Amino acid sequence: MVLVDGVAGGRVSPFDRGLNYGDGLFETIRLHEGRLPLLERHLARLQAGCARLGIPWPGDDALADDLRQVTGEGEGVVRIVVTRGNGGRGYAPPERVQATRIVSRHPLPHATPGGLSVGVCNVRLGRNRHLAGLKHVSRLEQVIAAAEAQEHGWQEGLMLDDRDCVVEGTRHNLFYVRDGRLLTPPVDECGVAGVMRAQILELFATGDGCEEPLGYDALHALDEVLLCNAVVGVRVVNRLEGRKLAGGHTGAEVAHRLREAGVAWAVV
Amino acid sequence: MVLVDGVAGGRVSPFDRGLNYGDGLFETIRLHEGRLPLLERHLARLQAGCARLGIPWPGDDALADDLRQVTGEGEGVVRIVVTRGNGGRGYAPPERVQATRIVSRHPLPHATPGGLSVGVCNVRLGRNRHLAGLKHVSRLEQVIAAAEAQEHGWQEGLMLDDRDCVVEGTRHNLFYVRDGRLLTPPVDECGVAGVMRAQILELFATGDGCEEPLGYDALHALDEVLLCNAVVGVRVVNRLEGRKLAGGHTGAEVAHRLREAGVAWAVV
Repeated sequence: MVLVDGVAGGRVSPFDRGLNYGDGLFETIRLHEGRLPLLERHLARLQAGCARLGIPWPGDDALADDLRQVTGEGEGVVRIVVTRGNGGRGYAPPERVQATRIVSRHPLPHATPGGLSVGVCNVRLGRNRHLAGLKHVSRLEQVIAAAEAQEHGWQEGLMLDDRDCVVEGTRHNLFYVRDGRLLTPPVDECGVAGVMRAQILELFATGDGCEEPLGYDALHALDEVLLCNAVVGVRVVNRLEGRKLAGGHTGAEVAHRLREAGVAWAVV
Repeated sequence: MVLVDGVAGGRVSPFDRGLNYGDGLFETIRLHEGRLPLLERHLARLQAGCARLGIPWPGDDALADDLRQVTGEGEGVVRIVVTRGNGGRGYAPPERVQATRIVSRHPLPHATPGGLSVGVCNVRLGRNRHLAGLKHVSRLEQVIAAAEAQEHGWQEGLMLDDRDCVVEGTRHNLFYVRDGRLLTPPVDECGVAGVMRAQILELFATGDGCEEPLGYDALHALDEVLLCNAVVGVRVVNRLEGRKLAGGHTGAEVAHRLREAGVAWAVV
């Protein structure tokens, strides 16, 4: 099911700025037992992103109406896309903007149980402080990285920035354990400030203490690497470019605390 | 006039990968006296881009048919967008892809005669060798840079990479004169390999000899800076962040040689 500006089965103008310039944002929300437990976090991030890019907020009521129509029962994924609407030709945002909103429901992706086998992509993340953290639709870097991961048969591809720092996976944020501490790479130069990442940071961190850069070489000395996103919760990496990771108890501990916090689908 | 997959007035699926992931390419082509003199260059670049990204080529005949329908007489701009089509949810390209093609005609943008007043944007270009040169639709960097230029009242905003090198404008490539040589920044780490840039390089250069990085400080020591793209031909910058440029004869010489080569609209 898909709603375009509230219209079921609607289609999008070929002049939409999301399509022509990647000028928009999106959210991917877990539907669990007919509810959207992390909805508030997703909407807050979307609204902050719109404010940062100067895209007008489509309105709480309009989004709530759309969400009511698409969610339904059971498990699944709900996606919201908000673009800067139609804008003729040219990069500069038009003076008067009416955002386009697309709300759709999708089946839960098939997940193989157990640890994930991952590798590091050749495709890098370009650093840009003005876009870092945003879940925008200009995602061609992730598209070609995901294709690379698929070619290698990895279940996820990790992405480096141009300083050889590991930032995230193509569709997951990354946590790692070093000296007994649960850490995650900062996302202030590139990468997505994920909703599940924020939730885990809140449960485990004191302020930003949990953010620490992770060099490519340091990655290969780790025993415990976790991947997370709103749809799957948290997953453990058990194979990194062919090397079996020793593992530990942190993945189970993170999943346990997430479940206690209402993220009931947070299996490892 | 707009054609979506050959259908006049057609609309686009909300699941199109161009819209959801910036997974597509585009061309902006000058229509001059009812003809598209640089069409071959544009189609060659588009086809090379599709090959690089693994997007299937929509077909010479389909594009030629579309172009015949939209061009018509007079002056204008023709735009081609090719995306990786519909692809459900997830970054990885689907196994079977049917590209979406959008061909449209637009009025020629209003151009103020005379030299351009430009400034340097705070928004940078993220470096990524895998995307550099491509005219892809993941252009959020250009959108926010163009907004910045607009706020300052500049006619164009120049963009730096994270090493303080000037790469291009938001919608123009850049040439500059140093020690009597016509130079342009390389676009192998970021930036667009523009059609007019290629044409000028061909007319003036011996191989790649004309590509030389331009630092931000060095920019401010220049007397002659030119901007070019397929729509406007070549323009002279006469004001750079408030400083009046001394200028020179190179702009007129470039325009002259372009006109000789068939780019009749190449006024300075």
